[in-house]
Amino acid sequence: MRLCERPSVCALMVLCAAAVSVHGGNVLVWYTEGSHWINLKPVLETLVDKGHGVTVLLPNTSLYMSASEPSRYRYEPFNTSITMDGFDEFLQAFLHFAIYESTHMSYLQIFARLVEQINMDIELQLRYLDGVLKSPSVMAKLREGRYDVLLADPIYVGSEMVAEMLDIPLVFTLRFSVAHTMERLCGQLPAPPSFVPGTLIKLTDRMSFGERLSNFLFYASQDMLAAWFWKDIDGYYTEYRGKPTSMCEMIGRVDIWLIRTYWDFDFPRPFLPNFKFVGGIHCRPAKPLPQEIEEFVQSSGEDGIVVFTLGSVIKNISADRANVIASALAQVPQKVLWRYGGKKPETLGSNTRIYNWIPQNDLLGHPKAKAFITHGGTNGIYEAIYHGVPMLGIPMFADQPDNMVHIEAKGAARVLHYNTMQSQDLLDALRTVIHEPSYKESVMRLSSIHHDRPLSPRDEAVFWIEFTMRNKGARHLRVQAHNLTWYQYHSLDVILLLLSVGLLLTLLLVKSCGFCVGRCCGRTRNMKNSKSKAE
Amino acid sequence: MRLCERPSVCALMVLCAAAVSVHGGNVLVWYTEGSHWINLKPVLETLVDKGHGVTVLLPNTSLYMSASEPSRYRYEPFNTSITMDGFDEFLQAFLHFAIYESTHMSYLQIFARLVEQINMDIELQLRYLDGVLKSPSVMAKLREGRYDVLLADPIYVGSEMVAEMLDIPLVFTLRFSVAHTMERLCGQLPAPPSFVPGTLIKLTDRMSFGERLSNFLFYASQDMLAAWFWKDIDGYYTEYRGKPTSMCEMIGRVDIWLIRTYWDFDFPRPFLPNFKFVGGIHCRPAKPLPQEIEEFVQSSGEDGIVVFTLGSVIKNISADRANVIASALAQVPQKVLWRYGGKKPETLGSNTRIYNWIPQNDLLGHPKAKAFITHGGTNGIYEAIYHGVPMLGIPMFADQPDNMVHIEAKGAARVLHYNTMQSQDLLDALRTVIHEPSYKESVMRLSSIHHDRPLSPRDEAVFWIEFTMRNKGARHLRVQAHNLTWYQYHSLDVILLLLSVGLLLTLLLVKSCGFCVGRCCGRTRNMKNSKSKAE
Repeated sequence: MRLCERPSVCALMVLCAAAVSVHGGNVLVWYTEGSHWINLKPVLETLVDKGHGVTVLLPNTSLYMSASEPSRYRYEPFNTSITMDGFDEFLQAFLHFAIYESTHMSYLQIFARLVEQINMDIELQLRYLDGVLKSPSVMAKLREGRYDVLLADPIYVGSEMVAEMLDIPLVFTLRFSVAHTMERLCGQLPAPPSFVPGTLIKLTDRMSFGERLSNFLFYASQDMLAAWFWKDIDGYYTEYRGKPTSMCEMIGRVDIWLIRTYWDFDFPRPFLPNFKFVGGIHCRPAKPLPQEIEEFVQSSGEDGIVVFTLGSVIKNISADRANVIASALAQVPQKVLWRYGGKKPETLGSNTRIYNWIPQNDLLGHPKAKAFITHGGTNGIYEAIYHGVPMLGIPMFADQPDNMVHIEAKGAARVLHYNTMQSQDLLDALRTVIHEPSYKESVMRLSSIHHDRPLSPRDEAVFWIEFTMRNKGARHLRVQAHNLTWYQYHSLDVILLLLSVGLLLTLLLVKSCGFCVGRCCGRTRNMKNSKSKAE
Repeated sequence: MRLCERPSVCALMVLCAAAVSVHGGNVLVWYTEGSHWINLKPVLETLVDKGHGVTVLLPNTSLYMSASEPSRYRYEPFNTSITMDGFDEFLQAFLHFAIYESTHMSYLQIFARLVEQINMDIELQLRYLDGVLKSPSVMAKLREGRYDVLLADPIYVGSEMVAEMLDIPLVFTLRFSVAHTMERLCGQLPAPPSFVPGTLIKLTDRMSFGERLSNFLFYASQDMLAAWFWKDIDGYYTEYRGKPTSMCEMIGRVDIWLIRTYWDFDFPRPFLPNFKFVGGIHCRPAKPLPQEIEEFVQSSGEDGIVVFTLGSVIKNISADRANVIASALAQVPQKVLWRYGGKKPETLGSNTRIYNWIPQNDLLGHPKAKAFITHGGTNGIYEAIYHGVPMLGIPMFADQPDNMVHIEAKGAARVLHYNTMQSQDLLDALRTVIHEPSYKESVMRLSSIHHDRPLSPRDEAVFWIEFTMRNKGARHLRVQAHNLTWYQYHSLDVILLLLSVGLLLTLLLVKSCGFCVGRCCGRTRNMKNSKSKAE
């Protein structure tokens, strides 16, 4: 078959190459939770817009996903043995540990508790996975669905196994794994510890010797931990398939990795052809505000507004912290919109209004937005970058402190410590990000980097999902490194051989020299002996 | 300044982000030669189409560039002390060595001759550079030009120094440097020798231990050679600026590297955010053929045509080789169009026509094209990939043998050795690529990879050139690795410290154990002694 029979058709084909799409593709979406689900939805909407069928696996226990939510995609429900209360209990215990308890703990205690938490999390995830893999009816439905691709956020384990069982391509969408262990060990993403800080370590790409040492040890320790934690999953997979199976090797077959950062937020680093950086995938222009909020915003006059949220997971904070925050906010001339589910703080100023929910993106995109007080979640940060609003970070847990280190290093944010900050600290920092021009300039530079790329992050993500469907995978983007052992990858066997040969040659040389010198000296001695005898 | 004041405007802005361009930008283009110039022209045409002013530096001695050629860009001529005869003599001597002489030489002789050739080439290049850098009038004109960017193929040295003197961003467009030395050592492009074969080594990304060893040694030796050759250029730069200057460090400041390959032709490998792969930048749909050629092509009927060229540099071959080729071609049912400047071979068949020049791209894009006999230049290979035509490679010199190894490994070509092939070999190989379906299927797969990307290579190249103009560089894409030494990059100082600490702790442990054992044994001995004394 010719690619094109007539020049004019051919020209049209080439011009339209970027616009080609697979109408009627069939996308299966892995279950996820929290901000991960928020992030995924705009991509699914775009896929539906482009004529694809989208089916989302939906567990009966979910905080964020719900079949009753109006949407244009189909749900494929499955049952798990986890109760909503049990799930919420696990989450709240983790939050309490991460935000409060850990501040009074030694490193060893934190480590022990983290290991316990992660083991519990893996157990929880495998119980979710039971609901799909070990349910003959769900697996039968998935097989009947004849899906073209499985789109998964690997925050919940198991998609690689289901893709393997259904024999369909797999596209990952993820923000990070700790120290990039999954991307590095399973995806072969190169990450020299000398200038690529591991996620969560709170370092930038400019590291001192001590920081490089920390980063190196962080990578090494996380690799060991990952190998340990993944053993449980390998055991589960091995039992399920009845033959030795490694999760990491299976993940190595992922066709496309959609990484939810870009060079506006992340530091430039080496990557691979099947890694696509689509940070800000959920960002969109601001929509008009509800009337009551718009009136409050307009009442701020020239001073403008401050948008404040600690994210969707944190519903409540202690009265002490709430009062520290409220009394600082009361002293700025801006109007403040605070998303907060707790009791009204006593020190709340008349310029501050508390909401159970705020249209965060629309507020950040409003011309009057002057600053964004954030817990440092990637979604919020990306909305601030998208709309060009300077940030004040009060990170709480997970990747939040690390995220804020990035934005602070790029000059677009100040950062405070939630547990130790006082009203004056918050007030000073807020005034600084609003009135010091460098913060606005920096965030506008990041905003320009964000917008000035050949394809929007959502279009890029959708392109590669469609590409994977069209081509039944993306094998031509997969490096051969997947077929090498770690010592082969780093050429250690080659170096060892060369060193051995070098050593052998040196020894031979030294021996030969010794032999020659010996012969030479021996002859001289013999000659001397003969001489003395003759005398 | 707000990014956008109204949501509707904002939406429009985001939607149009990919289409944003800098009208009236001012692009300075570095002089180049041969296929490099052929490759550059379509990009310059597109830049002119998009409203930019394009000025090309033009030496008075050039085989391919000419101010009399109709074009829409302006030329900035400069004089060199090189004569056309001298230049052609140098080129012909190199070709004769590469194609004929080297086949009868030992490796040591080839190496010595190559070193001599490269030294001559560097001398020649620096004489060209004299015409720009050391001409006050040319430099004054370039300063007055107020260019926004310098676009250069680094096949001719010096653009990095001129960009530095003019204080403007620099975009490189290149196919390769030997063993990627320039990209690796100056651009910090990672290239693990275990799965990234160095350009020219004729290996694929699937290497045996021996091949990995060869590749490792190839990288190492080329690095040493490069350091040696670049010393002359460093000396020239240091003398010019009156302070120590390194060419490689200067190249490290290149904003965007446009690499003229893609994953259709190249093997997937790690890369960096400022490396963009735009292979096939010059490809375009086929235009109608001249009437005489179209009639000859149509006369081929169902059998179709074979397109045959050994490239623009090779004008003539020996009578023996020409007859070997012609007699093979005479035996196929296809009509053959052979671009050849030499004497008509005696064995030429009636199905073969010789042309001084052929519309190669239009022939390859013709529905009747069945095979392409090529010397393996990247431009021709990309046209065959673009149009989906299986190849038969007869590589001659430079990157041609290496290029054909790529296409052969991807199943879209057979390869023959120019000096040793016989008529029957050529005939068998040609029949195979025409009649064995796997070759057509493979090249169609490569063609699909080539076309199925978010942006055409030309649009991508132009986007990043415009990006560099808009943003006065692309510093946010530049990795911090540039600020590390080689041992810092590979964390060797960190590893040395850890090994030392490990060794010290082991020694301490061994000593302590020895001490304890000693004390313990000593006490036992003393007790035994006391006991025997008591007895």
